[in-house]
Amino acid sequence: MKHFFSITVVLIFNIIITNAQTINKKANYLNTSLDFETRSLDLVQQMTLEEKIAQLGNNAPAIPRLGILPYNWWNESLHGVARAGVATVFPQAIGMAASFDLDMMKQVADIISDEARAKHHEALRNKDYGMYKGLTFWSPNINIFRDPRWGRGHETYGEDPYLTGQMGMQFVKGLQGDDPKYLKLVATAKHFAVHSGPEADRHSFNVVPNTRDLWETYLPAFKDLVVDAKAYSVMGAYNRVDGESASASWLLLEDILRNKWKFEGYVVSDCGAINDIHANHKIVSTAEESAALGVRKGCDLNCGSVYQESLKNAVELGLIDEEEINRSIYRLILARMKLGMFDPPENVSYAQIPYHLNDSETHDIMALKMAQKSMTLLKNDGILPLNKKKIKHIAVVGPNADNIEVLRANYYGEASHPVTVIEGLKSKLGNKANVTYAQGVPLVRQDSNNQNLELSPSTLSDVKNADVAIFVGGLDATWEGEEMQGRTNIDGFYSGDRTKIELPKIQQEALKAMIATGTPVVFVLMAGSSVALEGLDKELKAVLMGWYPGQRGGDAIADVLFGDYNPAGRLPVTFYSSTTELPDFKDYNMRAGKGFTYRYYQGKALYPFGHGLSYTNFEYSNLKIDKPNLGMDDELTVSVNVKNTGKMDGDEVVQLYIKDLKSDLWMPIKKLRKFERISLNKKTEKTVVFKLNVEKDLRYYDATQRKYKVEPGKFEIQIGTSSADIRVRTVVEVK
Amino acid sequence: MKHFFSITVVLIFNIIITNAQTINKKANYLNTSLDFETRSLDLVQQMTLEEKIAQLGNNAPAIPRLGILPYNWWNESLHGVARAGVATVFPQAIGMAASFDLDMMKQVADIISDEARAKHHEALRNKDYGMYKGLTFWSPNINIFRDPRWGRGHETYGEDPYLTGQMGMQFVKGLQGDDPKYLKLVATAKHFAVHSGPEADRHSFNVVPNTRDLWETYLPAFKDLVVDAKAYSVMGAYNRVDGESASASWLLLEDILRNKWKFEGYVVSDCGAINDIHANHKIVSTAEESAALGVRKGCDLNCGSVYQESLKNAVELGLIDEEEINRSIYRLILARMKLGMFDPPENVSYAQIPYHLNDSETHDIMALKMAQKSMTLLKNDGILPLNKKKIKHIAVVGPNADNIEVLRANYYGEASHPVTVIEGLKSKLGNKANVTYAQGVPLVRQDSNNQNLELSPSTLSDVKNADVAIFVGGLDATWEGEEMQGRTNIDGFYSGDRTKIELPKIQQEALKAMIATGTPVVFVLMAGSSVALEGLDKELKAVLMGWYPGQRGGDAIADVLFGDYNPAGRLPVTFYSSTTELPDFKDYNMRAGKGFTYRYYQGKALYPFGHGLSYTNFEYSNLKIDKPNLGMDDELTVSVNVKNTGKMDGDEVVQLYIKDLKSDLWMPIKKLRKFERISLNKKTEKTVVFKLNVEKDLRYYDATQRKYKVEPGKFEIQIGTSSADIRVRTVVEVK
Repeated sequence: MKHFFSITVVLIFNIIITNAQTINKKANYLNTSLDFETRSLDLVQQMTLEEKIAQLGNNAPAIPRLGILPYNWWNESLHGVARAGVATVFPQAIGMAASFDLDMMKQVADIISDEARAKHHEALRNKDYGMYKGLTFWSPNINIFRDPRWGRGHETYGEDPYLTGQMGMQFVKGLQGDDPKYLKLVATAKHFAVHSGPEADRHSFNVVPNTRDLWETYLPAFKDLVVDAKAYSVMGAYNRVDGESASASWLLLEDILRNKWKFEGYVVSDCGAINDIHANHKIVSTAEESAALGVRKGCDLNCGSVYQESLKNAVELGLIDEEEINRSIYRLILARMKLGMFDPPENVSYAQIPYHLNDSETHDIMALKMAQKSMTLLKNDGILPLNKKKIKHIAVVGPNADNIEVLRANYYGEASHPVTVIEGLKSKLGNKANVTYAQGVPLVRQDSNNQNLELSPSTLSDVKNADVAIFVGGLDATWEGEEMQGRTNIDGFYSGDRTKIELPKIQQEALKAMIATGTPVVFVLMAGSSVALEGLDKELKAVLMGWYPGQRGGDAIADVLFGDYNPAGRLPVTFYSSTTELPDFKDYNMRAGKGFTYRYYQGKALYPFGHGLSYTNFEYSNLKIDKPNLGMDDELTVSVNVKNTGKMDGDEVVQLYIKDLKSDLWMPIKKLRKFERISLNKKTEKTVVFKLNVEKDLRYYDATQRKYKVEPGKFEIQIGTSSADIRVRTVVEVK
Repeated sequence: MKHFFSITVVLIFNIIITNAQTINKKANYLNTSLDFETRSLDLVQQMTLEEKIAQLGNNAPAIPRLGILPYNWWNESLHGVARAGVATVFPQAIGMAASFDLDMMKQVADIISDEARAKHHEALRNKDYGMYKGLTFWSPNINIFRDPRWGRGHETYGEDPYLTGQMGMQFVKGLQGDDPKYLKLVATAKHFAVHSGPEADRHSFNVVPNTRDLWETYLPAFKDLVVDAKAYSVMGAYNRVDGESASASWLLLEDILRNKWKFEGYVVSDCGAINDIHANHKIVSTAEESAALGVRKGCDLNCGSVYQESLKNAVELGLIDEEEINRSIYRLILARMKLGMFDPPENVSYAQIPYHLNDSETHDIMALKMAQKSMTLLKNDGILPLNKKKIKHIAVVGPNADNIEVLRANYYGEASHPVTVIEGLKSKLGNKANVTYAQGVPLVRQDSNNQNLELSPSTLSDVKNADVAIFVGGLDATWEGEEMQGRTNIDGFYSGDRTKIELPKIQQEALKAMIATGTPVVFVLMAGSSVALEGLDKELKAVLMGWYPGQRGGDAIADVLFGDYNPAGRLPVTFYSSTTELPDFKDYNMRAGKGFTYRYYQGKALYPFGHGLSYTNFEYSNLKIDKPNLGMDDELTVSVNVKNTGKMDGDEVVQLYIKDLKSDLWMPIKKLRKFERISLNKKTEKTVVFKLNVEKDLRYYDATQRKYKVEPGKFEIQIGTSSADIRVRTVVEVK
């Protein structure tokens, strides 16, 4: 198989080369003995202005005389290759973040990039150069999930900059591969930067972030991905930052990204963001000015067509010169060179990945594993795990129990065999128990539809007669998601965002009716963000956060409910008790109101950041540090013993937080700086070792001197099982 | 006298110190054995947030507990200390530029700073801390006079970046002095950057300059002043540049000014420009956001009160932190330290400058000399110089002949003895000739006023009977100048700008009537910019450009007309033949239409840049270069012999232009890179030597790599008496 495909591709490639060489004998850009930079420059020099400009849109046409194939830069892979037919569908990003498992994240990204390469080369063989067939992926989304109302929050790794950076780096490394010469794919860190809703205003709103929030909350994950993980592409955001379009910002793209971080890849605009510059932000008056501004401020590739339609005119008007356009076209050509697009495929090991790897059984198993790892047990009064032997009748109710949408969230591929919750439970129990099911109510009350608005008598009768009732509810990505222009305020949902974070009333009422039957009720909450329960949590026997769990979500949830998998997922976001706890959604000041996220929130969370229960118990002891007094450049080794003292094997997510004990400045309440997910068989223990670096882990951003600094003084090192459940702590002092 | 004043100041100062020390024993900021940086930091640390914020407006209040006096940062000295009562009034900047005389410019600036220091210390003695009494001057204006219609063009040094930089550097050096420790004054390079009208739109318009224009036309003079002359302050412009307010621009203030140019002084907004950010540019929505944006983007001082009124709220809203405000207040305090404001005056030599130097006779003589040097003879068919012995009746006509406004232009001091043209002529001729005078017509036809709209029969009779007639017309700064909000299109004048550059019709008609008498007519044109003559130049016997010549303007003009001074001024701007030659006024692309300024203008000028006649003749010969082939880092020595072959002693402005003979890029037609004004007695000669530096003098800005580069190839070195009258030339080649 592999051999056959290779020959085909080589043939196609040879035809291209021959055509190009016929026209240009000195095709240095095809000379694989030269470096990519030299070859890219050579190719740029041979292109006319018109040809260059045409390449600057995501839908780049062929240039037959130079042997350049059509290429569409737009592809997606947030949690699996998306929008390109059947692919392995992993849990949505927020769920993968809940795993707190870096190794697992890397393995998932390796699989995604294998499937992406396999699909790309299959498409090439079919001469399909269309959208979602390329090697340049507009993932991951590493915006900070500042406010739970933001509809796209589930695309992110949550509210913490450190966790986001750590997960994002693994994702980038998995996508881009480790070949010394070629990029496996291009990963795109988006949306750079300071972008977290509201969706309804994204084409026109302006954020004026304060400098410390910018450098302590909004930028660090981008720096991790660009500087450390070498993400080759960055996507600008729609909104303005300090009055500049984030997709055409001197501050962000030139000063920070290229000057300070030495980014050498290319920048792509969010889709339509260049058009927004004149049409919605009204920063300039004409498309020509937007195009000139975009290129000049460092946005190389326009998702959209403003560059393609207006740059020629902009050159004629003297708004920009061809020489300046050369910078951008060079960066884009260089990216394609590094992806191996101008080399014989036999030179590129990634081009050999066989198509049958896509949606393979081993990938399906990994989808299940990641779903299991993402499961986050928020409450358990002991009812879980359910006992397969004892339970004879289980009543399953709720709008997410048999919902395909809730498995795949947004930016999804087509799962070949998706398993919903009801399917997972039935498959687990087989004929050992009576599993009754009713959707009962929809996710949200839409008065215009003819909906069931309360549970029917027969459903309630099933619940009453069951040993245990499972309500599977929450949200799905048809309700929380990217800008939904038509939707204006249906029961607290507004243009993809929520205006209130409480569980929709119709579900609350269904839950109350179930609880009233006297049968113990377990709530399987499936959502991409924090959901407030209005006190219902007190009456529920257990609450399992299932996120948007991907193609094997139903199996993973059934495994946890019945103890075939001991959960260890942790919340990557704070669960607030109610919407009234939240600051103004539009306020990007992290300390606004009672504060955003666990790092600043002054109130009491319903479930705190880092929280997640296990079916076993872990004891922490013997915290050791190698030195209590530290210099500015010191490293510090911290170790702690963790013992599984319960009755089941299980995973524990050991979390290390830093708290600045006394400061003349405002400081976060605490901040996550290390974590490790470990597996411990019952009655075994492990020593977990963390290396802290004073400069990196204790720093803040000095707004006066505009650089990171460490304030001398005392810091508490806290280690525990969640941000609010610290088990051991010690103090160090920086001189 | 000097001794007495010093004692008084010391006494006042000691009281301040004593008060401050009473409250704070550790007043390190008053410890003159420490450096200014340490002292400034100490003072900033002792200030409360409210105190700091109050200092960030131009009208900074006292802080008695810290011994800080009230201080108003706003002062002006464009061509003499302005708006502070009697001072020596030199020619307006455009006229001084026409002198092409760097030594003279430095001497003038030395005088201005002497008068400024004298006035400041006199005001201090009188406990007058008000506006226009300080040491921080918002001069010079080094914007490029891109389009003659711009009303404020006469505040500048003309249309050429090199000339502007050269003149501006002398001005800055003269203002700031050469004391190793103290600044004499603070000079402010304004308006940074890309600012040249229209005035009517200045609070809201956006410029999208192309990169090469930015670096080859709009920025070089600022770089000269900031990097080479160490101007300690920079003022932002009103307009937006690439969508950012120029007074709050990451590109301009942070990336270029501070990062690339290592500017260590402070930035001040244009007056009201911070308010414009939300009120007119609408970049943000509130004053608080404008204030945060301004400080964060590097504008330290707000001319206006937005900072003072809104920064406290901005801090409370979390838009900005006190630490960030510290950067700006530190810079401002450091500036005042460097001006000696926290030191005993006996330590500061500049504080000893006696008040009687102000408006002294020696300064008046220098005002005359500079006016003479600025005189630019555009046409002369031989009638000039007039012969005092032969002329018995001279008829002087015109609205500028006895106009005080035309002497002082804008940003002016009060001259104690201003000499108008009619006064200068009468004083020159005494009773040796009959000097008749009539204003005849106003500068501009204003239908609403009861004006003389044509020359009266008696005036024409005087003209007819005279040996020679002098028409003194043109413009004045009540017509061309800074934003005149009430004025909408009166006969081609619009809000301070012109919509047409032709001499106002009413003056043309007067000139025609005078010419029709048969008496030879000389036109003394007084204006700050290019004026088109609609063919009248052909019928005039001579045209003398008198600019806005300052307090001794009338004497200088009389001296030139009668040959007591041989003129050598040169045009720092192109004189176009008509408005139809000009591109769109709002277009900042230097190559728009037929092109702006001599560097790009493709048409035939009425009078070209660098043009100016003498009463004698100069011959150029023996052009020598020390090497024809150059490396990228080479220096080149060029020498030429210039001989005065005529019958009068005189000055010649030897100008060296560079022309890139062949390029793959667009290049200016030619560019001035050296000049020297030399004095030569008749029949004598001199060798003029210029040192060229390949990197500095032959470079262009590479928009791809974003740096200056030299394109290998051939360059012509042209030396001559104007940009269009090249006398000798040679070719060099850069390898």
